[in-house]
Amino acid sequence: MTDQHAARRGRPGYDQDGILEIAVAAFNQFGYDATSMGVLAERLGLSKSAIYHHFASKDEILERALAVALDALDGVIDETDAAGGRAADRLDRVLRGAVRVLVEKLPYVTLLLRVRGNTDVERSALERRRAFDRRVTALVSEAQAEGSIRSDIDVRVVERLLFGMINSIVEWYRPGGRETAEHLADDVVAVALDGLRMPTENRIEQLLG
Amino acid sequence: MTDQHAARRGRPGYDQDGILEIAVAAFNQFGYDATSMGVLAERLGLSKSAIYHHFASKDEILERALAVALDALDGVIDETDAAGGRAADRLDRVLRGAVRVLVEKLPYVTLLLRVRGNTDVERSALERRRAFDRRVTALVSEAQAEGSIRSDIDVRVVERLLFGMINSIVEWYRPGGRETAEHLADDVVAVALDGLRMPTENRIEQLLG
Repeated sequence: MTDQHAARRGRPGYDQDGILEIAVAAFNQFGYDATSMGVLAERLGLSKSAIYHHFASKDEILERALAVALDALDGVIDETDAAGGRAADRLDRVLRGAVRVLVEKLPYVTLLLRVRGNTDVERSALERRRAFDRRVTALVSEAQAEGSIRSDIDVRVVERLLFGMINSIVEWYRPGGRETAEHLADDVVAVALDGLRMPTENRIEQLLG
Repeated sequence: MTDQHAARRGRPGYDQDGILEIAVAAFNQFGYDATSMGVLAERLGLSKSAIYHHFASKDEILERALAVALDALDGVIDETDAAGGRAADRLDRVLRGAVRVLVEKLPYVTLLLRVRGNTDVERSALERRRAFDRRVTALVSEAQAEGSIRSDIDVRVVERLLFGMINSIVEWYRPGGRETAEHLADDVVAVALDGLRMPTENRIEQLLG
């Protein structure tokens, strides 16, 4: 991080993180391509050269913004791995952690989910997303192997359905609404791991088999 | 439908549905706004006026394309309502039906999911989607009331998570791949209704108790 450096050079009111926040909001609203450095400067009330004090290019702003989301997601799985325990419990923690990241870093995750791989920065972010997906998929495999989650579904399909559900939250979640991150994480885990259906006697017999 | 009418007027090789299919592929690839009637004419190898024989405007093409997806989704819930039965079983059928529509009408559903409400046609499509969502939400409420699905999650959150998971399939599903629509529907229902986690004795006691 170069925050100290940035703060020393920045104009009052905007440090590097402050510029990043406004830029991400603009990228999400207008699209990355449609948001010029001129538009950003206008929104910030800064000159373009003042922005260039903090970031070498628009591409670097995007890179830093995507790293906020990716670092947070990687942090979830790193911490979970470090804590250890049964794979099913680690999967539970990864799902909860991903929901928390989505809620806490909503604009950054929204930006990440829109990346289509048009530039080197975007392709590199997609590669990091795929690496994250592979780690979650490996965790699903491990949980299947230990017999704690059902093993009749392809692990890649499981991973995609789980993160399809989690990522869709960016479409409707509004900060400050009735759903807190913890509550939403409980809901996701309830649907994905325990299922909506109340168990019936024969379903239980079938599963415990 | 005006297929007979269209076929009579159309040039060999493209009836109205054929033009629709090519147009939807172009809208999904380039975006609706970026796809001019000139681009469409070029892709079809037709003159613009030949397209205007079939559709009054680009907007009408979009309207017809979105109706393909919306009619199919409404059909799923209409048929389910007509068949009757327990609400949990109807919900199961609606989820399976929605997956089937997504797979069978993939480009049309993809287009529908990208609509943001920029024109009257788009706003009207969004209103139909919301009406569909409300019918599914009512079904979730009914299933909670009959005691067949868990009632500790807000019905709107349940509906959003379920369709977040289902709609995310457009991001990765490739026709002709290993997953058939029926297989994928089984997977979605397995995750959403029965859950991934294998039941433990105390979990069962907790749920049945």
